[in-house]
Amino acid sequence: MNIIEMAAKAKEASIKLSAINGDKKNKALERIAIKLEERKNEIIEANKEDIQRSEKENLAAPLLKRLKFDENKIKDVIDGIKSLIGLEDPVGKTIHSTVLDDGLELFRVTCPIGVIGIIFESRPDALVQISTLCLKSGNSVLLKGGSEARETNRILTKVINEASIEAGMPDGWISQMETRSDVSEMLKMDGYIDLIIPRGSNEFVRHIMNNSKIPVMGHADGICHCYVDNDADLEMAVKVVADSKTQYVAVCNATETLLVNEDIAKVFLPALKVEMDKRQVELIGCENTQKIISVKPAVEEDWKTEYLDYVLSIKLVKDVDEAIAHINKYGSGHTDAIITKDKAKAAAFMSLVDSGNVFWNCSTRFSDGFRYGFGAEVGISTSKIHARGPVGLDGLIIYKYKLIGNGQTVEEYSKHIRTFKHRMSDKNFPL
Amino acid sequence: MNIIEMAAKAKEASIKLSAINGDKKNKALERIAIKLEERKNEIIEANKEDIQRSEKENLAAPLLKRLKFDENKIKDVIDGIKSLIGLEDPVGKTIHSTVLDDGLELFRVTCPIGVIGIIFESRPDALVQISTLCLKSGNSVLLKGGSEARETNRILTKVINEASIEAGMPDGWISQMETRSDVSEMLKMDGYIDLIIPRGSNEFVRHIMNNSKIPVMGHADGICHCYVDNDADLEMAVKVVADSKTQYVAVCNATETLLVNEDIAKVFLPALKVEMDKRQVELIGCENTQKIISVKPAVEEDWKTEYLDYVLSIKLVKDVDEAIAHINKYGSGHTDAIITKDKAKAAAFMSLVDSGNVFWNCSTRFSDGFRYGFGAEVGISTSKIHARGPVGLDGLIIYKYKLIGNGQTVEEYSKHIRTFKHRMSDKNFPL
Repeated sequence: MNIIEMAAKAKEASIKLSAINGDKKNKALERIAIKLEERKNEIIEANKEDIQRSEKENLAAPLLKRLKFDENKIKDVIDGIKSLIGLEDPVGKTIHSTVLDDGLELFRVTCPIGVIGIIFESRPDALVQISTLCLKSGNSVLLKGGSEARETNRILTKVINEASIEAGMPDGWISQMETRSDVSEMLKMDGYIDLIIPRGSNEFVRHIMNNSKIPVMGHADGICHCYVDNDADLEMAVKVVADSKTQYVAVCNATETLLVNEDIAKVFLPALKVEMDKRQVELIGCENTQKIISVKPAVEEDWKTEYLDYVLSIKLVKDVDEAIAHINKYGSGHTDAIITKDKAKAAAFMSLVDSGNVFWNCSTRFSDGFRYGFGAEVGISTSKIHARGPVGLDGLIIYKYKLIGNGQTVEEYSKHIRTFKHRMSDKNFPL
Repeated sequence: MNIIEMAAKAKEASIKLSAINGDKKNKALERIAIKLEERKNEIIEANKEDIQRSEKENLAAPLLKRLKFDENKIKDVIDGIKSLIGLEDPVGKTIHSTVLDDGLELFRVTCPIGVIGIIFESRPDALVQISTLCLKSGNSVLLKGGSEARETNRILTKVINEASIEAGMPDGWISQMETRSDVSEMLKMDGYIDLIIPRGSNEFVRHIMNNSKIPVMGHADGICHCYVDNDADLEMAVKVVADSKTQYVAVCNATETLLVNEDIAKVFLPALKVEMDKRQVELIGCENTQKIISVKPAVEEDWKTEYLDYVLSIKLVKDVDEAIAHINKYGSGHTDAIITKDKAKAAAFMSLVDSGNVFWNCSTRFSDGFRYGFGAEVGISTSKIHARGPVGLDGLIIYKYKLIGNGQTVEEYSKHIRTFKHRMSDKNFPL
């Protein structure tokens, strides 16, 4: 089967999948969890093969780390599937309904998006996570993994496919594209794929975002900020900044730049430095910062850099407005926090910072689907439409309008034989 | 000011605009309505100039018709603004909130998208409609109109800009791009523009959709269907099909293809033909249709054609499944209707037809923001994400997550010193 045929089949399957009820989809998810457990040795073997080959091919260490799919990772994805089963079916919910006129009722009802393209580097757990999220939400999925993980991806796709088909899911709802070409072929399939979710390094995601006509949901950069205001509780500020920077440095919601109100810099920066030294964080600072504590001099490029490491850039600002302007200029729209006791300044910050997540007096590391209580996460989106911030199952859902009448024509209304009532209703779609 | 400066200014203004309250935005809308009325003679003069020049340049008749902006059109857009003022402010609404833990509260709050690019052919009323919708929803707007309407667009933009600035809106929230180049320059501004809304002919919209990295909201084709089932009330079917086809032929929600269950074709088609002849509709039919009534033979291309005229293509199908498959293959995801007395077939049709609007026993012409009771319409979207079907003000809105804490760190939760409560709440964002 060539990739166009695969895509056509996925589209066809997506229609069938959209009409399958929640119980049946949950049975398929259960079956997938069981099969992954049953065949874990095969999966681990396949993964070892990938790792050995990739080591020979000198794959970069972080990619190699993400490639590893051992017993613990398998347990994690199975646990993920189990918690997914517990979530409410997101499909077929009536969001709102309006009586346009007696006997003419409009319903806005949730439905799957259609075909989701998943493009990922290394991490085989992303394959299992996102494809089971797609199944739960009634979407077909086309997978394009990196060649470094090809054996692992192959067996995982096979297991998920077989288990779900046994449980009555439509053939073709999941397929893996294996071509020698790069992802560019997939990016051109806008006739078949409705949404692309990329998972991988910043460069990888940015490449996909810059080269696709298909909508992309995700984030490339995570340039997150903490702003410590002159009205901050400085002890709290040190604690929150330390957590935001160091609780886990290699992730998108770790803070990269600290903005400090110049009025409290002389008191705050030395205290911060003690804590940062303890945590072995390299500090890079603007000219005014350099006058107060010993730091490496910052250059313009630092404000645009996602270190993903024990490195923090620091800039002094005049006030909350300058902090907001800096964040909106250099940030990536991901997550930004203000530390202050002043409610009005917090309100301004949270209103004017144009990011998917804006925090008051807590760590930027909270920006995460699990911590938000979504139960499952598709990814974190920095786009401005459809879904923003941590995206749960509802990011894979859209709606359609369903109108039920008994022979009404527009002519009757345009000639004023009948008039619209437009009465809000709380009725669910009855079919 | 060059267009990059304009775009940067629009982005800056969008931040300010996002924090302006509903009353103040309504005052600006009132002021715009007043100024449009006050300066209507100037506007009409400018439009006459455009029409005269365009006539000399032999602009196509439909474009010329859409270009006209007379006293009635001005009254219409002013009425539109007045009804827009009556709508609730879509910004700052708490969609849901969760208590992550005591003293750590998450709110999902609506906010504007940012900068909307509007690209339109001819119709100056689209300029007023969409830019006032943008203002109400707190978005900046960059306009790129066709050169045929340049004088009208100039004066309209000027009036809207002046009136809104007087009422305290931020400078630069609206600007008109006038360059000799085509729209391609605007389509490249993905660093500034968050969403493009095109208004114009199918070819025009398709060109924009095919050449933009920026998300596009709208529709190119409107290939809508009626399916008349063997369990239909045939009298109702004739009435609904006639309305769907002829109530207004030049619009996207007019039916282009009729699918008829072969079991009732011999009774239904002659009755339909009488009505269609009366309404001077040319019929084009598949081979099986040709055996029953006199029609022009249909070719494959007919199933993909949006006639926008008194022309209807007819195809006989075996059952509702074949009708659904035909629609999903040839349709444009806009609006499709089934006429049947059978509830189960209606349910299947409404579930499996992959269109933004699926109707049971009523005319496809109902697919419209005003008829749906939205009060104002941005356009009709056939995309699969963000907004689908007729799009009201909420299509210009997204959300951000606002998290309020008192010094919490992720470390405390990862070390199980504290645990998440994830308790749903009905609290509104308090700042």
